[in-house]
Amino acid sequence: MISNDTLRKPAEAQHPIHELISERWSPRSFAGKSVERESLHSLFEAARWAASGGNQQPWNFLFATKENTEDYARFTSLLWERNAIWTKTAPVLVLVVAQLYPRPGSEYISFYDTGMATANLLTQAVASGLVTHPMGGFDKDRAKAELNLPEGYEPIVMIALGYPGTLDQLPEALHERELAPRTRKPIDEFVFEGGWQRPAPDAAIE
Amino acid sequence: MISNDTLRKPAEAQHPIHELISERWSPRSFAGKSVERESLHSLFEAARWAASGGNQQPWNFLFATKENTEDYARFTSLLWERNAIWTKTAPVLVLVVAQLYPRPGSEYISFYDTGMATANLLTQAVASGLVTHPMGGFDKDRAKAELNLPEGYEPIVMIALGYPGTLDQLPEALHERELAPRTRKPIDEFVFEGGWQRPAPDAAIE
Repeated sequence: MISNDTLRKPAEAQHPIHELISERWSPRSFAGKSVERESLHSLFEAARWAASGGNQQPWNFLFATKENTEDYARFTSLLWERNAIWTKTAPVLVLVVAQLYPRPGSEYISFYDTGMATANLLTQAVASGLVTHPMGGFDKDRAKAELNLPEGYEPIVMIALGYPGTLDQLPEALHERELAPRTRKPIDEFVFEGGWQRPAPDAAIE
Repeated sequence: MISNDTLRKPAEAQHPIHELISERWSPRSFAGKSVERESLHSLFEAARWAASGGNQQPWNFLFATKENTEDYARFTSLLWERNAIWTKTAPVLVLVVAQLYPRPGSEYISFYDTGMATANLLTQAVASGLVTHPMGGFDKDRAKAELNLPEGYEPIVMIALGYPGTLDQLPEALHERELAPRTRKPIDEFVFEGGWQRPAPDAAIE
C-alpha cells in the first residue's frame, strides 16, 4: 500500500502483529495529493464504531482541508511553531475533541474512549494508504475559543494526515528525526500477570 | 476467521471500513478454549506500538488466565455482579491501567493514549480470531488495593477476552441483549468541518 519512494517505518515487533498496526507511524512528510472525501468518511466511520462506556461515544472530530484556505489557516494557527513548520504539506488537519462524561469522578474516562475511537481512525488510515501524525503541541485554550467548543468539551490532539511523502520534502533539520528508529518499552515493563510488577514469565523477549 | 456457529455482529457501516474494525464487538459469550500465550503476546505487542504524547507510553496491562485459578478469582472479584455473571466463560481477564502524566493539567491525557493502545489490542484480537469485551463496571479502589497499584496509576477498564462463543452458552436473560443491533450516532453529530457544529456538507448519509 506504500510505494518504494515514500517513507515507511514499520514497527520492529517482537511478536507477530497485523500490518495495519505495525505500519502506522507518525511521519512529518506528506505527498502533495489531497485526500478524497470518501477516504475521510471512512476514517470517521471507523472511529464511529469504537467501543465506549455505556455507548456514550464522547468523541468529536473537527477537520480542515487545504482546499478551504481560511479554515486550514485557522487550524494551523493553533499549532505550536515546532509542529507548524512541517504540517504545511499535510492536506488535512483533524482536531480531536472529547466530551467530558457527566458522572462526577468519571469525566476523564471520556479521554480513554476518545483515544479508542482515534486509534480506529489511525488504523483505517493505514488501510486507506494514508499516514497520520497526532500532535499534543497546540494551544488548547485558543482552540476552544476559535472553534467555538461548548463548555465540557476538551480538545486533546490535532492530527496531520495525508498520503505519505518523501524525505526531500522536509527541511534538512528534520531528516535525522524522520529516519530515527522507533522505540518502545519492552513488554515486561508494562504487562504483568496476576498483579502489579509480576512479569508474565514468558512474555519478556528483549 | 469466525465459524458459522459462533456469534458475529459486524458494524452496519455507512462508509467502507476495514473488517478488523467492523468485526470488533463486545460479546458476552466465549468458547471454552484457552488463549495461546503467543496470541496474548501479540495483543500486548500491538498495544506497545501505539502513539503517545512524547512517546511516554502510559499504558499498563495486568492479566489473569483461567488456568491460574487464584489470580482469575481475584480479578473476577473486582467486577460488578452484572458483569461477573457472564465473564465466567472468558478465559482471560485484562485490567487496563494508565499512569497519570506528570505535567500538571495534562495528567488525564494519559487516558487518551492508553485508549489508543487498548484499541490496538482490540484490533489485533480480531486479527487473531479473538473477541473482547471492555467493561467499566468494576471496583476501581479495590483493584488498586488488591493488585498493589502504585500512586499515580489509575485502572480504567477490565477486558474479558477469548475465542467467540455461541448464544446457548449464555443465560436466557442475556440473549436479547446479545442479539440487539449495534447502534451509533450518525456521523454529522460528531464530525464538523472548519468549526463546531458546522457539519461537513457531504458526510451525512443517514
